[in-house]
Parts: sequence; C-alpha cells; structure tokens
Amino acid sequence: MSEFKPVRGMRDLLPEDAQVLRAIEEKARVVARLYGYKEIVTPVVESYDLLSAKAGEEVKSRMFLFKDLGGRAVALRPEFTASVARLVASTLRNESKPLRLFCVGSVYRYDEPQRGRYREFWQSNYELMGSDRPEADAEILMLTNSLMQLTGLKKYVFKVGHIGVLKGLLGRENVDEKVQNVVMQLMDKKQHGDAVALLERSGASRECTSIIRKLVELKGANIFRVVDEIKTLVDGCTQSVEAVRNLGEVLELVSKSGCTIDVTVDAGFARGLEYYTGMIFEVYVPDLDIALGGGGRYNRLIELFGGEPTPAVGVAHGMDRIMLALQLQGGFEKAGEQKTAVVVPTKDELIGEAMKLAQVLREAGMTVELEVMGRKMSKVLEAAGRRKATFAVIIGEKEFREGAVVVKDLAKREQTVISVGKIKEYLKS
Amino acid sequence: MSEFKPVRGMRDLLPEDAQVLRAIEEKARVVARLYGYKEIVTPVVESYDLLSAKAGEEVKSRMFLFKDLGGRAVALRPEFTASVARLVASTLRNESKPLRLFCVGSVYRYDEPQRGRYREFWQSNYELMGSDRPEADAEILMLTNSLMQLTGLKKYVFKVGHIGVLKGLLGRENVDEKVQNVVMQLMDKKQHGDAVALLERSGASRECTSIIRKLVELKGANIFRVVDEIKTLVDGCTQSVEAVRNLGEVLELVSKSGCTIDVTVDAGFARGLEYYTGMIFEVYVPDLDIALGGGGRYNRLIELFGGEPTPAVGVAHGMDRIMLALQLQGGFEKAGEQKTAVVVPTKDELIGEAMKLAQVLREAGMTVELEVMGRKMSKVLEAAGRRKATFAVIIGEKEFREGAVVVKDLAKREQTVISVGKIKEYLKS
Repeated sequence: MSEFKPVRGMRDLLPEDAQVLRAIEEKARVVARLYGYKEIVTPVVESYDLLSAKAGEEVKSRMFLFKDLGGRAVALRPEFTASVARLVASTLRNESKPLRLFCVGSVYRYDEPQRGRYREFWQSNYELMGSDRPEADAEILMLTNSLMQLTGLKKYVFKVGHIGVLKGLLGRENVDEKVQNVVMQLMDKKQHGDAVALLERSGASRECTSIIRKLVELKGANIFRVVDEIKTLVDGCTQSVEAVRNLGEVLELVSKSGCTIDVTVDAGFARGLEYYTGMIFEVYVPDLDIALGGGGRYNRLIELFGGEPTPAVGVAHGMDRIMLALQLQGGFEKAGEQKTAVVVPTKDELIGEAMKLAQVLREAGMTVELEVMGRKMSKVLEAAGRRKATFAVIIGEKEFREGAVVVKDLAKREQTVISVGKIKEYLKS
Repeated sequence: MSEFKPVRGMRDLLPEDAQVLRAIEEKARVVARLYGYKEIVTPVVESYDLLSAKAGEEVKSRMFLFKDLGGRAVALRPEFTASVARLVASTLRNESKPLRLFCVGSVYRYDEPQRGRYREFWQSNYELMGSDRPEADAEILMLTNSLMQLTGLKKYVFKVGHIGVLKGLLGRENVDEKVQNVVMQLMDKKQHGDAVALLERSGASRECTSIIRKLVELKGANIFRVVDEIKTLVDGCTQSVEAVRNLGEVLELVSKSGCTIDVTVDAGFARGLEYYTGMIFEVYVPDLDIALGGGGRYNRLIELFGGEPTPAVGVAHGMDRIMLALQLQGGFEKAGEQKTAVVVPTKDELIGEAMKLAQVLREAGMTVELEVMGRKMSKVLEAAGRRKATFAVIIGEKEFREGAVVVKDLAKREQTVISVGKIKEYLKS
C-alpha cells in the first residue's frame, strides 16, 4: 500500500464529488452573471500583512503562514475579501462605483478537521463595492438565496444581525477596540457569559452589561418584532439604534422584493472576521451546525488598505459545505448522463482507423473511450458494460473493408452493421 | 496609494483575463469529456516527500516548501502528476484500467518572473493510466491537439522525443542514475556541451559521447526520416533502438488517425521532471519560447509510490500560457455579449419594487444590475451608457401605478413604456 496520503486536513475529491463541486461552481458563476458581478482571479498566496490586517485573532492563528524563498512572510488566503479589497484599493481604485466582483477558489485554515470542516475548502465570493445603502445589503442576501435555490438546496435559514448594535453599546462605554474584538470573538463562539465577564473586568457599566445580557437572548423568526424589541432595548444609544434601524430597512427590502427566505434575527450574533461594520449574516441547514455561507457589510477595509473610503458588502459561500448539505438533503440533481462510445479495433493494424473514427465521433460531441489496452474483444465488452458505456463501436477487418463498422448497443444488447458515413447520426439518435 | 501588492511573482487576473482563463478551463473540461477523462480535485498542499520524490532537482529547488502548524513538511504542488499518481497508488488502486483522470487548477514554482512565467500558474492535466501501448501515447498527443484547436489557437508545433533514446545510451555505459538525471536537466536547458562534458568526466566512452553529440543535432519536421536517422545512429544499443521504434509507432498512429499536427522530432530533447520513461513532448507557438504544455510517458511512478506497476502517460497544459499565446495570435474568440439591464427606481419608496422586477428578469436569464447608489437618473444613465449596458428599466411612480415601466434602449436611444407583464419578452427580443 502507498505510504503517501493527503496531508492531514486536506482531501481528494473523486469524480462523483468533483463533479458536484464543479456544478456548484458553475451555478455560482451563473448567479454572478445574473447579478452583474465580474469574475476576477486573485492569488492563493498573499502577504501575511495583508491577510492578517483585519482577520481577527482566531483566523490569524490558523493561517498557513510561511516565508517564501525570497524571505517574504506570506500565507495561504483564509478568505477572499482581503485580496479583493487590496485590488479595489490599488489597481481598480479608479473604476467607477458600484463595483461588483466575483471570485471562486480554494481557501485555507488550519482548523481541527471534522465533518464539513477541512483545511482546504472552496468558496464562491461576491463583493459589492461603493454603496452604503440598504439595497446593496439586500442584494447580497438575495444573491445568496439565488445560489442556494439554484443548487437545489431545499431547506435553509438565514441568521441575520448587525455588528453595529453591540459596537454601539461598547463604543459608548469607551471599551478599548482590542477588547471589543475579543468580545466579538467570544460572541461568535456563543460564549456570551465570558464576553460579559470580560466587559465587566474592562470597566463596562452595569447598565451596559445588563443590556447585553438581554440582547443575546433576542432572536427569532418573527423578524420585525425582534427588530422592534432590540430597538426598545438599546433606546438611548444612538449608534445602536441607528444600526437596528438599518437592519430593519435591509430586511424590509428583502421582503418587499418578493424573495421568500427563512430569516432569523439574532441580536447577539457576531462573526470571526474583524472587518465587519454593519449587517452580518450566515446561512444554515437543519442538520449541519456549520454555516454554508456568510458575509456582511465592511465599510472601512478599502480605506485601511490605502484606498478611497469605500462602503462595501459581501458574502462567501462554502461550496463544499453546500455539497455536504445537498448530500444530507438527498443529493445534487445530476444533468443527464453523457452517452459514451467505446471504440475497439479488432487487430493492431486497425488502431489508426479506430483513432480516426474516434475523432469523428468526438467532433460530433460524443464521449469516446478508445481501447488502449489491446485486450480481447470479450474483455473489452465486459469492461465497457461494467462502466455503463452506451455503445461499443467495433472496427472489424471485413466490415471495415466495406466501409462499415459494427455497433453494439450495450444496454439493449443489440448489434448492427453501420456504414462509417452514417455512424454519427446513428449514435446520436 | 495602497501599500499592499500581490506577492512578487503572483498576479491578479482582472475580469477580461479571468474570463479567458475560465473559458480555456471550460474547453479543457470539454476535451476531458470527449476523451472520457473523469475530473478529480487534489489538494494544493501536499507532503514534500511526495512532491519531491521524482520531481528533479530544478523543480525541487523551486518549490514553495514550508512546515504547517503541525510541523509537517509540506509544499504547494509544482505540478499535478505526483498527486494523481498518489491517488492511483492508494484510494484508486483497485479501479479497473485504463483509468483516465483529469484535473485543473493552480500550481506553484518559485521561478524568476518573466513574460508568461509566474510563480502561480494554471494547468489542465490529463493522465491515462494502465496502458503501455503506443495508442495511449497517441491519445495524449491528440487530446492536446484538440484542446489547442478548441481554444482557437492557430499556429503551434509539437516537439516530440523519447527519453529512452538517451537513457539507453547512458544505461549501457553504466552511468550513475544521479548523473543521468543531471545530464537530463542540462539537456532540458539545451546545455548540450555541459551535458557531454559531465558524461566525459563520469567515465562515459568516447563512442557514447560521440553518438550523443550527433544525436542532439538530429531534429526536424520530416519526422519519419529523423526517426530513421536516430535509429541508424543508435544501432546496436538495444534499449535506444527500442525507444526510437516506439516513438515511430506513436507518431505513425497520430498520423493515421487523421490528426494533422505540426510535429518536430528532437532526439536530444529532455524534460525537467525525472519520472519520464518514454515518449516526451512539448507544444510551442512561434513567438513564445516557453512551452504551452508538455508531458510524456512515466511507467514507474505509481510503483514508486507503493501502487501496482502501472504504465502511464499524461500531459499538463499551461492555461495562462495558452491565454498569452492567444493574445499574441489575435485574441480569444469571445462568446456573444450578455445583455445587461440596469434597473432604476425613481424614488426610495420604489426600491423594493425595483428589486422584485430585477428578480423576475434574472429568472428569465438576464444580467440585471440594480441601481444601489441612490443617484440621480441622469447620472445612472450616463454610467449605464459607459458600461455598455443594453437597457435601462426605470420604475417611475406614475407608470408603476398603471402596471408599467419605462424601458430605454441605451444603444438606440429609444424609450418605450411597457407593461410589467410583457417586459421579459420585450427585453429578450
């Protein structure tokens, strides 16, 4: 047995899974096209400074970080947004806004491997740059819904919050930004008690921690009522009130657009990346406790990277997690199977002719497997049957001299002699 | 200006280039389908031991090598074949042969950046496992030709050789395998003089070096004559004679198949990877001195990785180099431009309605850009014109109350009022 295995946390996708992943990628590209997002390709390897600038401690501590042969501190991207923001702050700085950008590919995090969580995974990523208006946030939610629908996912729910509600409360208390970030990390991991304890130690007022204790309990699918409850709770803290008002606007637009999605509002919801400034969300399916995708508004990142101040909102979808969710919900709907012809010369002198015929059939769009093993006919047909090939096209000396070949329909077990000129039509019918 | 740039040797592909790269990837997938190659996805990060086992000193010294957080020596793949061979030696070891596998993605080499040579680049890769027969080699050449044709490349030439010709001569002289590998590396870099000098120092006979000196001069487009000349030159060295006979067989099959490709046979041709054992080839275009693709036969790799002895032949195509070659030859033929509608609400109260209409148009397959900037109508239309959008669909209060919208054809500068129910038809016509 081979001593070589994939590196821990990495995996191979065999043809069946690879096909689903590529199909989801193709759906993601369709969504990009429908919503007017242009695809860009950014490197897997980026400078560590860029990737770590606003990633959050958790993500930072799990990067594949190393020095390249030139001594540069580089890392494998743990997400796409930093790279896209870099581009918008530099090469694309003079492009007119809004700028809609799409990318797709593999990202890397050194997490403990578990179901649905690998160290190499695939994301489709959409960023809408230049608009601070709620319709931009709503568009990101809607395109996420379009992707989930297109992949055939049946049951999923959006968890939506707004980072500004908590940030407003913490800002009013003058809680140090580093402490704020740690609080958000704890919130992200649902360690609400620890978050409140840290705030108490950091000198936050009893009023503030009392509000936060109640806030983290406010969630539910009756979204406009939850929004109102949050509003009442944070009344008096201008920034938080503004945040919840904005959240309400976004949700109202989604609802008005006719987009029927299951939404839960969660007031104590935070995410692991530090760059968010507004609405945040994640998508879940019932039987999987990891998010299929998530995103939100980040209005200061481009500026931080040296670009013009540019409000932005974006989302990343975990394509391999969508694949897993589809498997849990009964699988990806496959396109109709492609017809396959196995082309077999009966003797070595006819191999060139077999290759020629194979080429003609490929030009007509068929999948053609040429017999390259020099096996006996019975072995070839047996193998073709196992592989569920549709036809065997046999180049026999006698028939070929008369300009014909033998075609076996492997499912029907029928055999016909057909002239070479007519074979394309026959196989396609 | 932003302080952040791509890491040296890496690059971003902006929408125009990204579109070409993805189109080439799609063509590569079409070729895989036509020839019966199943796609697999292997990790970008592999164990260094695996990747370095038969890579050759040159490739080895240019790997992105590092330790992951678990202390494992890993590297970014410099090519696909080692990963595919690992799979065939392990997970896929019991699959019946032949096994046709396709993969596509980014690979990494720390080369000095120059035109067409980056440290991250993209390959489409095909491996045919299990057949030692010349029709397998011929198939790999033919599918490479199919890909070049499908991308629209007009002028390209195959450089073909056989590693066994040189290896046979060196083997007869009992030249140490390590020295043989260095000789091959020098040959690959066309440093023939250095190669011969090294052989002299390593005790190769004058007869041998004299043959090799003549051999490296033997090349040309009159392929069967060159093959005969090589045969005459190496006469008496059984392994070399067998190699050139095999090369002739492969080329004869390609020729018989009706595949009309430009081929140059080059007797002194070698490649930078150590695992080749038979026919080798590369594809070139006139104005670019780097290969667009290359491959060959490697019969011992699977065994080396702990699998069953499995003869194999494969090819990798440099997708970004094909892109560059297409640009040099006048560009990639673009698919017809997608029609784009810009949907604009005339006041904020109509944004929800605008989003609803946008969604209806997307469901009909149109690209729809929603106005998310809250700009004045004149600004929106100006921007839409610059972006070459096809239509502007304006949601005005008065028209909308009557169930209609205003559609502006931005090219024709015509404007029509259309009922919402008929707009899909109108825009698609």
